Amino acid sequence: MISPSDIPAYDDVEDAARQIATVAVVTPLIENLALNERLGFRLLVKAECLQRTGSFKFRGAYNRISRLTPEERKRGVVAYSSGNHAQATAYAAKMMGVPAVIVMPADSPAIKVANTRSYGAEVIQYDRYTESREAIGKRIAEERGSVLVPPFENKYIIAGQGTIGLEIAEQAKAIGAAPDAVFVNCSGGGLTAGIALALAKRSPATAIYACEPAACDDTGRSLRSGKRERNSPDARTICDALMTETPGEITWSINSKLVKNAFVATDDEARAAMALAFRELKIVVEPGGAVSLACALSQQRPAEAKTVVAVCSGGNVDAAMFQSALAAA
Amino acid sequence: MISPSDIPAYDDVEDAARQIATVAVVTPLIENLALNERLGFRLLVKAECLQRTGSFKFRGAYNRISRLTPEERKRGVVAYSSGNHAQATAYAAKMMGVPAVIVMPADSPAIKVANTRSYGAEVIQYDRYTESREAIGKRIAEERGSVLVPPFENKYIIAGQGTIGLEIAEQAKAIGAAPDAVFVNCSGGGLTAGIALALAKRSPATAIYACEPAACDDTGRSLRSGKRERNSPDARTICDALMTETPGEITWSINSKLVKNAFVATDDEARAAMALAFRELKIVVEPGGAVSLACALSQQRPAEAKTVVAVCSGGNVDAAMFQSALAAA
Repeated sequence: MISPSDIPAYDDVEDAARQIATVAVVTPLIENLALNERLGFRLLVKAECLQRTGSFKFRGAYNRISRLTPEERKRGVVAYSSGNHAQATAYAAKMMGVPAVIVMPADSPAIKVANTRSYGAEVIQYDRYTESREAIGKRIAEERGSVLVPPFENKYIIAGQGTIGLEIAEQAKAIGAAPDAVFVNCSGGGLTAGIALALAKRSPATAIYACEPAACDDTGRSLRSGKRERNSPDARTICDALMTETPGEITWSINSKLVKNAFVATDDEARAAMALAFRELKIVVEPGGAVSLACALSQQRPAEAKTVVAVCSGGNVDAAMFQSALAAA
Repeated sequence: MISPSDIPAYDDVEDAARQIATVAVVTPLIENLALNERLGFRLLVKAECLQRTGSFKFRGAYNRISRLTPEERKRGVVAYSSGNHAQATAYAAKMMGVPAVIVMPADSPAIKVANTRSYGAEVIQYDRYTESREAIGKRIAEERGSVLVPPFENKYIIAGQGTIGLEIAEQAKAIGAAPDAVFVNCSGGGLTAGIALALAKRSPATAIYACEPAACDDTGRSLRSGKRERNSPDARTICDALMTETPGEITWSINSKLVKNAFVATDDEARAAMALAFRELKIVVEPGGAVSLACALSQQRPAEAKTVVAVCSGGNVDAAMFQSALAAA
């Protein structure tokens, strides 16, 4: 059960922005005039793949770990993650001299495992389809007395991701743009909830859309049924970053109120969006980071949305997968 | 013959910064902690491939075209370019409603030709190895009464590129970094001269290094001989953006004074740098845009340079070339 104090508010996002100001990259909001013309609307891409560790996860992880007491820092942190939160936790921990243990699926992209190790963390692998990462993480935290840094079910984590929303509001204003819609990749829902919190205050006319792989559309189904739905354990997608089983309790308490609708992209659509980002925006986006862009480019986009922001949330993709996306385009 | 009034000064760079402030992307200065550790020095990459049109050339082209009189704007502009200045001129002209004719080599990467056309310019192709682009451009300018927008031999063009130097100074300061060296891709020398002008004033302790493909090292040889040297007409490299025959007269008048030294990278080293940028920085860099990074990573880097900025100046690369770089890594 969550208590009201577990749920972040707008002020927590501003607080997170102060906390990460000197360490996080202010990722650019980029566009391509010719692309806009072809699409018939203004597409602004928040290139969050350029964040430290190659994904948005650094913002939340740093915000959380920086709040630890000196005593907690000594005992270290533990995190479970498909890869991006793993790298972010390892990196943020390293910056603050905190030992980190990361529990990762055995089938994580090699680049994510290698990077996590390169940031000095101890990596423990498990079978994504038969074992519970929450249980493994919890056991390690108990055994070692370390603090669990969850991927999304935490006030500081959600608030950290929400700093992207603050940046979108400021950067859009600076170029004279008023976003009608922001498309956000959604899995556990931390990024979506954080951005929704930020923009509900800073740009209330902007609609928030959760974007999911077609095979893992738990948030979309939850929005339609009004309660947290689960993905099938048999669900498979190349979007390895977006395979969480079900929305978080904390994130859902926010997203059920602030998210306008949810859209899906197939793996092929994600690949095509990766190729478009390569060709027209010069950024490297991983499959799960490109779902938002794929949805913004699809027929699902509300026709009245004339200025659309797509948050490209990560770029940790193996060369073989990237090459296959370019080859398919 | 150039006259002293043709040569830009620091104030022209500041003036250019005001001129492009609302239209150019402030490209981020990015780094990777694990990469820094592995390298043993702090590497900051100015991700200028994220600039509008995928290269730094937009800055100079916009600065130049925005100074045209209403009468000149009607008659239009003409530019010759291997591709990046082509796209930039077409795009900047389009933004200001100015007709553009672009003279491009027949063997330009397909993406550069397609993009230039997509920005509404008329493209005229020529044979890079047997025809003179200067002569073709001049003839068209005379026939049509249009204004020539040269790729580097112009005060406004050089000053526009120099705005990158201002951003480097500010962004480095913001993260507490004091660059010992800035590595700049050099062909005609406009980017190098602009950045050198900016940093001579804003960060005089920073040494400027010109980076060239090994096959087209005219600036390096010029620095050693003290006069403008030429590349062999038989020179071949995958760095299509860095194949100008000889340093410009205006750019040389600046670079001969302000550039500390020049380095070279082979095509294989450029490919390896592209793959590193993909893997560790999540940016798409073209061969000619990666030479600076390749030189910063090589043994040529002065050992005393502990904080190094590499300007990754462009990202307009065909998928096949990019895939070959990833495959080689």
